[in-house]
Amino acid sequence: METQPSLKVCRASLLVGIALATVLGTSVNARAQALKDVQTPDTPLVLKAQGSFFVGGEKVEQSQGELGDLGPGGRITVNQMYVRYMVPQGGDGNVPVVMVHGATLTGKSWETTPDGRMGWDEYFVRKGHPVYVPDQVGRGRSGFNQAIFNNARTGSAPPNSLPRWIRFSDEVVWPNFRFGSKPGAPYPDSQFPVTAVDELSKQGVPDVSFGGVPTPNPTLKALSDLATQLNGAVLMGHSQSGSFPLAAALLNPAAAKGLVLVEPGRCPTDYTTEQIKVLAGVPTLIVFGDHRDTPTGIGIRPSWQLSFESCQELIGRIKNAGGQAEMLAPPERGIRGNSHMIMQDKNNLQIADLILQWIDARVSKGSGEKK
Amino acid sequence: METQPSLKVCRASLLVGIALATVLGTSVNARAQALKDVQTPDTPLVLKAQGSFFVGGEKVEQSQGELGDLGPGGRITVNQMYVRYMVPQGGDGNVPVVMVHGATLTGKSWETTPDGRMGWDEYFVRKGHPVYVPDQVGRGRSGFNQAIFNNARTGSAPPNSLPRWIRFSDEVVWPNFRFGSKPGAPYPDSQFPVTAVDELSKQGVPDVSFGGVPTPNPTLKALSDLATQLNGAVLMGHSQSGSFPLAAALLNPAAAKGLVLVEPGRCPTDYTTEQIKVLAGVPTLIVFGDHRDTPTGIGIRPSWQLSFESCQELIGRIKNAGGQAEMLAPPERGIRGNSHMIMQDKNNLQIADLILQWIDARVSKGSGEKK
Repeated sequence: METQPSLKVCRASLLVGIALATVLGTSVNARAQALKDVQTPDTPLVLKAQGSFFVGGEKVEQSQGELGDLGPGGRITVNQMYVRYMVPQGGDGNVPVVMVHGATLTGKSWETTPDGRMGWDEYFVRKGHPVYVPDQVGRGRSGFNQAIFNNARTGSAPPNSLPRWIRFSDEVVWPNFRFGSKPGAPYPDSQFPVTAVDELSKQGVPDVSFGGVPTPNPTLKALSDLATQLNGAVLMGHSQSGSFPLAAALLNPAAAKGLVLVEPGRCPTDYTTEQIKVLAGVPTLIVFGDHRDTPTGIGIRPSWQLSFESCQELIGRIKNAGGQAEMLAPPERGIRGNSHMIMQDKNNLQIADLILQWIDARVSKGSGEKK
Repeated sequence: METQPSLKVCRASLLVGIALATVLGTSVNARAQALKDVQTPDTPLVLKAQGSFFVGGEKVEQSQGELGDLGPGGRITVNQMYVRYMVPQGGDGNVPVVMVHGATLTGKSWETTPDGRMGWDEYFVRKGHPVYVPDQVGRGRSGFNQAIFNNARTGSAPPNSLPRWIRFSDEVVWPNFRFGSKPGAPYPDSQFPVTAVDELSKQGVPDVSFGGVPTPNPTLKALSDLATQLNGAVLMGHSQSGSFPLAAALLNPAAAKGLVLVEPGRCPTDYTTEQIKVLAGVPTLIVFGDHRDTPTGIGIRPSWQLSFESCQELIGRIKNAGGQAEMLAPPERGIRGNSHMIMQDKNNLQIADLILQWIDARVSKGSGEKK
């Protein structure tokens, strides 16, 4: 039984597939044996602790139909945030780092890269930092609130009230994530491991946060609460979540020891003077890669250069208020070709080192994991 | 903006909440500070490798509307299976163990328990086994195919064609997972950490596999392919996925070094003589806890005793064909009170030891992680 007959499986049309593969520079067969590409480090990873837990969540009462009609109605938890963590042996006293993923992705973004190299999660741990990787509320292991979809199915909610689920096509990812200006044509200096772009495609999950999670997004308070529970943390966001660290810092500035905004979709330009004063108390680093003028193919953001410029404006405001905010643009240091997925780029550890140096220089010691 | 107005947030009705809390024996406030309960082991965990990757997946072509209308239409990957892994230092040559979760859950099932103790994932690693924890196709970090939901939203698919999303209410979990015969009333000998039952509630995610993933379920082939890529593995399933190891073994018996069925929803009773002959070549252990006669409150499975009996029947057939299949029922050994969530029970490591002893005794050496 093919439950979703509207889908056209490309495997069924091999000739079209071969033509596409030529255009896209990728394999038609998505069943690549990815495990074989996963690399083993030279030295073991020694962890004081690892595991997972949740932050936030609230109880709601739902009907039998809203719960999918397998069992009776009752209460469930929604809007909780899943967090996986690793604490290095001997890392006590080093500031924890929380890494939040972007749109249509999960915490997987920070793990093993598409071509099997070490992700930032493990690298930061090996550099002594406890690392916490959430899935945004509404996605991955955090789940989402399914009631409205079941209500539409049974006719108790109008279909046009459904929030939409976003995914990016493999084709639009090329310009939007700046691997190249069009599918299958990487920039000569591209740092993204484009031979493994099909593995990035597998990281994509439907994203309901464009209308399907409460406002304000519960992830913001969950991040602030996580930083509080950690007795202070560096908050790192990426793309869609690039500005989340700012919002979390405004909820509890004392717990935000440092903010790292990696390729944020935009930096808010409408903060009040009072808010800027608060943000001026928190060291902030903003990171943008190369080829920012590439037309993205996404209407709401014609180019990442616009995002870059909104962040330059924010940096200016924070600095004028006496704060420490700075831009890390690798191209300005002669490091060319970094993409939007900079944590997965071939030189991802080189970029990580620059961020780690900034943390060492700017973020106060004495914060640490939970006591 | 509350995007799902049909939901009644219990926090808003405190008096009702207090009454419910009395009935349920749980906190009204789901915003428990779970991190504080997470325990740190006495000795460090030394890993040769850890990370994540995908197995399987196929390309489909989808329209702009099917992709949520943020960017243009194109190809995406669906039906891939996310896998997180940990390989212990010095574990070479020990058979890997793959742990698959049950309905409305994710790989989180095997991680840190709701009350903050070590999960089976880490415990099996500490006992020398490489451990691989997938999210079933259609759930968690594996994602799902969102096209039909977006089509219903825009009117290009009828709402009644939508697959349903399942979650279990907190109330029905009590009898269905056999913490007690009714909500808030644990069995005197219950092994489940019922004071942390709200943390289990947070592990729940919507489950679309009742009609929303292809048939046969892509997870089955992905598990078989994973075992093949690992050069042999013990496949462990739980509840909904309890019988998945059997199905995966039938796809490639050589890669299935052992099968552990933890509280399977049912054991198939319609295998052919030929299939039983194949399964007779693979050591199989089936695990069931206590209080199996409890009425579940779920119509399709009145009690877990029925599941137990279907598995007794399968064990009989495999043994008659000369195979090694056995039941591990802790109550028969004087270990009382184990629940359906046996990997999270207070004596979870005691049960794990029994399974590890079985692996040592029954599963051939010489299989191992990828070369």
